[in-house]
Amino acid sequence: MAEAATPRRSRITPEREAELYGAVLELLREVGYDALTMDAVAARTRSSKATLYRQWGSKAELVVKALRHQKPSRLSEIDTGSLRGDFHALALRENDCEMAQGSALMRGLAMAVHANPDLLRAFRELLIEPEMEELRHMLRRAVDRGEIRADNPALDYVLHMIVGAFAARTLIDEQPPTQAFVASYIDAVVLPALGA
Amino acid sequence: MAEAATPRRSRITPEREAELYGAVLELLREVGYDALTMDAVAARTRSSKATLYRQWGSKAELVVKALRHQKPSRLSEIDTGSLRGDFHALALRENDCEMAQGSALMRGLAMAVHANPDLLRAFRELLIEPEMEELRHMLRRAVDRGEIRADNPALDYVLHMIVGAFAARTLIDEQPPTQAFVASYIDAVVLPALGA
Repeated sequence: MAEAATPRRSRITPEREAELYGAVLELLREVGYDALTMDAVAARTRSSKATLYRQWGSKAELVVKALRHQKPSRLSEIDTGSLRGDFHALALRENDCEMAQGSALMRGLAMAVHANPDLLRAFRELLIEPEMEELRHMLRRAVDRGEIRADNPALDYVLHMIVGAFAARTLIDEQPPTQAFVASYIDAVVLPALGA
Repeated sequence: MAEAATPRRSRITPEREAELYGAVLELLREVGYDALTMDAVAARTRSSKATLYRQWGSKAELVVKALRHQKPSRLSEIDTGSLRGDFHALALRENDCEMAQGSALMRGLAMAVHANPDLLRAFRELLIEPEMEELRHMLRRAVDRGEIRADNPALDYVLHMIVGAFAARTLIDEQPPTQAFVASYIDAVVLPALGA
């Protein structure tokens, strides 16, 4: 009886879990989702493929858990009292190195999410939706303070504007997005479009 | 001597060339750049791999030529007399089906251009730069007409805003970009950011 109460499933320490997720994201940035294999994850983390499958079930699940682990929504901590202040705090949330890595990650996933409905769904539920919900709160506060009109049509496109800045930065400017770039884009595009 | 003047290189008709390029773009949308093989192009077009290599030299060259063939810059034909008119004509340049295909193409190339410096260079030179140059003309006319201030900082970000709309549309809205979406985005974001 005492033995039955002990979980037979192998446990993984939080440190080891973080290390595994880090390796998954590293591989994702390097080769993209399709070329990322469980074999490569096992080799880089010196673990067995059997352990990976027992713990996460599938590559899609492992990748999404790794993404969520690395990027918990932290927008809710931002509340500076002005929309411009909030947006600039948002731009400072990740340092330049983290932004460049995030940008590489998005590229690695862009094709894959469209070929894998399960990955797309997990990606939206775990990453896009929470960010959008936090952003909506931030914008609602600005509407309540009278900084933006509630019927401004640009309110529906805030995420489009921001995602665009990141996507176009590499291709058009051949540079990774930086805090300075995002801050400049917010002042030049996002706030004027919102009439703030 | 007469024989030497005859090109020994096999000729290809413009119709056959267009058909080959069409097949390349079709494959690109389906599987992306990395998974696109010369074998697959040969099979789909019922040609030999030797012919493809003789005619185009490499996969990167074939892909870029196909892209250029499909999308010659037609912005220069647009001159409606107002910035809003020009932007809306721009949105109508491709029908909804063409836009969805273009969006799928960009996804297929996003990862590849970063892993292949030659592809990125050709992509920029043959596709991005000509579009940017035409866009700059369009914006300069609006500045000359007094519709936009010459020092508006959003002038540097017009392509970022537009690329963003396309990139974010699929991921956030789970829909391909349409003419109606682009027109709405222009009125809600691009023109207000430009102060027009």
